Amino acid sequence: VRILVVNVNTTELMTAQIAEQARGAASPGTEIVAVTPRFGPASVESILESHLSAVGVLDAVLHAPGPYDAVILAGFGELGREALQELVEVPVVDITDAAAHLACLLGRSFAVVTTVQRTAPAIEDRLTLAGLRARCVAVRAIQMNVLDLEADLDATAAAITAAATQAVLDDGAEVICLGCAGMAGLAERVSAQVGVPVVDGVTAAVALAESLHTLGLRTSKVGFSAPSPDKPIKGWPLAT
Amino acid sequence: VRILVVNVNTTELMTAQIAEQARGAASPGTEIVAVTPRFGPASVESILESHLSAVGVLDAVLHAPGPYDAVILAGFGELGREALQELVEVPVVDITDAAAHLACLLGRSFAVVTTVQRTAPAIEDRLTLAGLRARCVAVRAIQMNVLDLEADLDATAAAITAAATQAVLDDGAEVICLGCAGMAGLAERVSAQVGVPVVDGVTAAVALAESLHTLGLRTSKVGFSAPSPDKPIKGWPLAT
Amino acid sequence: VRILVVNVNTTELMTAQIAEQARGAASPGTEIVAVTPRFGPASVESILESHLSAVGVLDAVLHAPGPYDAVILAGFGELGREALQELVEVPVVDITDAAAHLACLLGRSFAVVTTVQRTAPAIEDRLTLAGLRARCVAVRAIQMNVLDLEADLDATAAAITAAATQAVLDDGAEVICLGCAGMAGLAERVSAQVGVPVVDGVTAAVALAESLHTLGLRTSKVGFSAPSPDKPIKGWPLAT
Amino acid sequence: VRILVVNVNTTELMTAQIAEQARGAASPGTEIVAVTPRFGPASVESILESHLSAVGVLDAVLHAPGPYDAVILAGFGELGREALQELVEVPVVDITDAAAHLACLLGRSFAVVTTVQRTAPAIEDRLTLAGLRARCVAVRAIQMNVLDLEADLDATAAAITAAATQAVLDDGAEVICLGCAGMAGLAERVSAQVGVPVVDGVTAAVALAESLHTLGLRTSKVGFSAPSPDKPIKGWPLAT
Amino acid sequence: VRILVVNVNTTELMTAQIAEQARGAASPGTEIVAVTPRFGPASVESILESHLSAVGVLDAVLHAPGPYDAVILAGFGELGREALQELVEVPVVDITDAAAHLACLLGRSFAVVTTVQRTAPAIEDRLTLAGLRARCVAVRAIQMNVLDLEADLDATAAAITAAATQAVLDDGAEVICLGCAGMAGLAERVSAQVGVPVVDGVTAAVALAESLHTLGLRTSKVGFSAPSPDKPIKGWPLAT
Amino acid sequence: VRILVVNVNTTELMTAQIAEQARGAASPGTEIVAVTPRFGPASVESILESHLSAVGVLDAVLHAPGPYDAVILAGFGELGREALQELVEVPVVDITDAAAHLACLLGRSFAVVTTVQRTAPAIEDRLTLAGLRARCVAVRAIQMNVLDLEADLDATAAAITAAATQAVLDDGAEVICLGCAGMAGLAERVSAQVGVPVVDGVTAAVALAESLHTLGLRTSKVGFSAPSPDKPIKGWPLAT
Repeated sequence: VRILVVNVNTTELMTAQIAEQARGAASPGTEIVAVTPRFGPASVESILESHLSAVGVLDAVLHAPGPYDAVILAGFGELGREALQELVEVPVVDITDAAAHLACLLGRSFAVVTTVQRTAPAIEDRLTLAGLRARCVAVRAIQMNVLDLEADLDATAAAITAAATQAVLDDGAEVICLGCAGMAGLAERVSAQVGVPVVDGVTAAVALAESLHTLGLRTSKVGFSAPSPDKPIKGWPLAT
Repeated sequence: VRILVVNVNTTELMTAQIAEQARGAASPGTEIVAVTPRFGPASVESILESHLSAVGVLDAVLHAPGPYDAVILAGFGELGREALQELVEVPVVDITDAAAHLACLLGRSFAVVTTVQRTAPAIEDRLTLAGLRARCVAVRAIQMNVLDLEADLDATAAAITAAATQAVLDDGAEVICLGCAGMAGLAERVSAQVGVPVVDGVTAAVALAESLHTLGLRTSKVGFSAPSPDKPIKGWPLAT
Repeated sequence: VRILVVNVNTTELMTAQIAEQARGAASPGTEIVAVTPRFGPASVESILESHLSAVGVLDAVLHAPGPYDAVILAGFGELGREALQELVEVPVVDITDAAAHLACLLGRSFAVVTTVQRTAPAIEDRLTLAGLRARCVAVRAIQMNVLDLEADLDATAAAITAAATQAVLDDGAEVICLGCAGMAGLAERVSAQVGVPVVDGVTAAVALAESLHTLGLRTSKVGFSAPSPDKPIKGWPLAT
Repeated sequence: VRILVVNVNTTELMTAQIAEQARGAASPGTEIVAVTPRFGPASVESILESHLSAVGVLDAVLHAPGPYDAVILAGFGELGREALQELVEVPVVDITDAAAHLACLLGRSFAVVTTVQRTAPAIEDRLTLAGLRARCVAVRAIQMNVLDLEADLDATAAAITAAATQAVLDDGAEVICLGCAGMAGLAERVSAQVGVPVVDGVTAAVALAESLHTLGLRTSKVGFSAPSPDKPIKGWPLAT
Repeated sequence: VRILVVNVNTTELMTAQIAEQARGAASPGTEIVAVTPRFGPASVESILESHLSAVGVLDAVLHAPGPYDAVILAGFGELGREALQELVEVPVVDITDAAAHLACLLGRSFAVVTTVQRTAPAIEDRLTLAGLRARCVAVRAIQMNVLDLEADLDATAAAITAAATQAVLDDGAEVICLGCAGMAGLAERVSAQVGVPVVDGVTAAVALAESLHTLGLRTSKVGFSAPSPDKPIKGWPLAT
Repeated sequence: VRILVVNVNTTELMTAQIAEQARGAASPGTEIVAVTPRFGPASVESILESHLSAVGVLDAVLHAPGPYDAVILAGFGELGREALQELVEVPVVDITDAAAHLACLLGRSFAVVTTVQRTAPAIEDRLTLAGLRARCVAVRAIQMNVLDLEADLDATAAAITAAATQAVLDDGAEVICLGCAGMAGLAERVSAQVGVPVVDGVTAAVALAESLHTLGLRTSKVGFSAPSPDKPIKGWPLAT
């Protein structure tokens, strides 16, 4: 199995970290190919940046050396999954959906712990459109920027633990989803502290991508994800 | 009042038609400036194309000669409104929202008549995220491509009339929204045939943009639409 | 354009204030005709009073010297809009709906600041039936009676500002709707204090009524708002 | 137990029929006092008529010789229940709610069979506001006017049976609610034909009113139904 | 009328108390037959126990000496009502549904006060499936076990009063439902303290069961509650 | 990895078929242990049978030789998953949830094709409580009993294909879930005929159970699934 993991931002270091997480969760026979968009924001923390990112991700997938058996969209709460499903034949797994789906199997309700507050509405919207909003009881922010998560891992873990604890006590969350690909390595640590399962989207997505591949399941092409009609795209950077 | 109207596709002819519709609905003192994205698809009929379009629209707005008092996103059911609201200070009116808001004032339920079936889910999703889904009873397609609407206006009007009539009789729609900027000129004709109000998004958006300007109302900047943090955007065409 | 603005209570002073607000927002060619019901409560602060008011409003519209191009129902969260839509041919704009529709264009979520707590459920119900509940995150009361709002405008503005601030901070509201026609003059002041757009229903309704008139749009008459069948009405005061 | 049953229209014959139905369902010790509004429409088939009716009902209750232990609002899908709950101390039972509550006890889903199509949206709205919409799968009309129901009872029963059968087969209804007080006598006949329970609101309301009285339960007065503040009501016919 | 009341647990003392409550609410001609399951948990405070209980209840009903005119499932928020509706011809009333239905007639919103927190989700789920979730604003726990409720009735009443008061003040509840059959005797006392109607499910169910019987209404047998197909049940304890 | 797969009925042949399906989907190192309840119905086609089945399943899991790393509840739309989650420490995967979760990754909407119509409401309820109802557009029945599915596999496949095709064309389903463990072997065949992905719950559950185990994720024990309090269970067959 060969899985293409696309970081949503242009920070190579983060792509490397995501790849490492993905490899840690992959089955023996699985190859993880992680790519970084050629253009786009260094981190994605607004809806405008998410739009720029989505096109960079599409470009990255078009240029990625194939073949691959599944694509993972490694940005939590970011745009682009539907367009990828239209673009490729193989299954596409968004880490947002992956985390939420597994969280639903582990408890009655889940909360997302994200970076900055302004990303919360976008995450809620993505869950709504994916049909996964029903059991999400809160999206809580730790008020740290994406690119600062690595600066002091102890502080980051502490902040996530604090927000997760609030979600459990005040919002009734039974499971926590880490709301940023950059938090991936902290799931176990936070889970041990808070006493509830903590789902990381990157590793969840690897497991689900492998599952879909094993079961021979691919994106349905009869409706929303049918291939785009062939049509002139003017001056589009993807073409170069 | 100076209103910037952004077509979502790169077909100049369609920009001209949209501008004409907009001017027909504008108040005496209003200037309509219509722009076409420098890159992107000739028409937008899939979610992938909608993503490409959204970035082209952002680019077009960044390059548009200011100042302007409002921005109209002239694509029905297309992505990008939230990013525009983040990008500019002036009010942003999506023609989808504009049509749906006015439709709600005219009847208990409305239906959208769109071009091809594959755009229906995207329109539903846009209405859902805008909080406007409650009274939309159907999105019906006439199975004509966007760029074919002008080929035979009588046939197009007949197809819209047929779909609208079905929406009224079978879905209980009391109002019809034209689901494509390219249908703008046919509202009166269809309304006369079907016997219900028919709302065109372009003209609705002009009226709402003028209204917001007159009332001194602008996009809230405290939450979802707060300006993006300043951050490196790698290799992004918008920068040129 | 000639717009009939109907106050929902029988306090003439309030009709005059509403008229002044409406005129301030009207386009140059628009004539505002404000009327007061011949019977009904001095202010509307309960569902029983709202029922009495609705009939007084219907009576007032029946007796108003025509012709007019639109009717504005100038009571926030009050009953009667559907009956007016059935009664007249021209568009009817309820200030509740008007404020909520414009608020949706300005932010992801809005809150209503009303007078007394007991009116909150009625406002919520009106928004629900109008299909506008999805983005209303709170209805907060300042615990002042309608007829006391004018006694000390500074105190009133301060109370509205306090409630609006809570709505922004605690409920996540991005936009505020003033929940009483009697608050109309305070929108700018509160907006400056709270830092978010503040929508007043009276001025919003004037803009929307003008928009509908300009676009040639009228209430759909095929379903819920079709004219009542002609039928004996026994001893009804409207008849006199 | 003394129960005040208020017809919503001014047709005395219909009041008599409703009273007869109510008496048939009442316990031995229960006295049914049926009243007709002094003013209002001969039948209620539109939202405007429903508003006129609601005030006539309030007037009728204010003038009814007391004391009584409960009030029944004997109009299906009509306005006024909340205002009655505000007006009186004893429990108020709307026949719409009564039928729907009992229907929920008898099956997973119910449908309402009403008179003319234009009353369907009003019924849906009343069920929505009463929190009873979840299990209503359809409101179907027989296209007969209220005052024509008695003209040919066999034809009326046949029409109701036909609509009910469609609701069972096409909409998945397991229970039928008769959507007009004037249909009250036909429940058993239709039930025998269709093979599902058929609930009549008038008899259901009598049973529920007796139940509430027996259990010593009255309308909550802490919130929405707290008594109206004392305040001048100008020229109101209720006062005479 | 002969009503079979089935306790959900195997504590005979509790069956006796429930029977006493039921008899207190029954009409003169009504006979209450209370039964205890032959097997199952001493009290039901988890979803696993609720499953065990449900089968014990089915067994108890199968073995109960008939005929009876209605069955009452006397466990708040417990499983089994749908299976009973399938098993017997006479109406089945779950005390959860009974309390919630009557609460809806008394106020705009209700809260449930239950024993331990872990039963809250089960209660919410039961209300959801019964279509009664719309007006339930909270399920609050007093953190006392079912079998401890009788130990100190004053303490129990005080704990319920405290939780009910919070529900009224913080959650906006207008009516309280007692969320355990073991609380049945305390309704009046709590109501007097909190100042809102307090509905006990056992007495509510008796009234509703009598009502359904009087009106000749039985469970619909056309869909979900049609009798089970005849089929081998292997080694089932019910058979002995 | 050692996965315990519990058939919900007492038909050993069906357990064997389910085990074979599960083994076909399992990873090399995974051991599938399939068990049959010691008591209960030969097939589960009603809510009463589902209740009997759930207790048989709990009994079977209690008696199953451990240790195992996950439990699969191999009945589509049957009761018991929450009780299993309470009973054991390892993850529990219901084939209903498994199929629906994977279906959500493959398309915008899915439909379930089940055996007999009377199971449809139960399936809908299970999806509702699992938070998975949002994207299920239909549950369609082929009107064949569970134990007849094997009689003529060609006829069964044809019936499923016909229902699935209707779901795609009439209901807008993009993905099909097989709504009975007994249909497991037909997924590929139906998918080839209908042209959309077809998800079988048994194989989906194996993949998800392996995923959860690999990621070290277990059921949250802080809320709804916390272990039952220790308490006397009277005469319960589980005890033997």
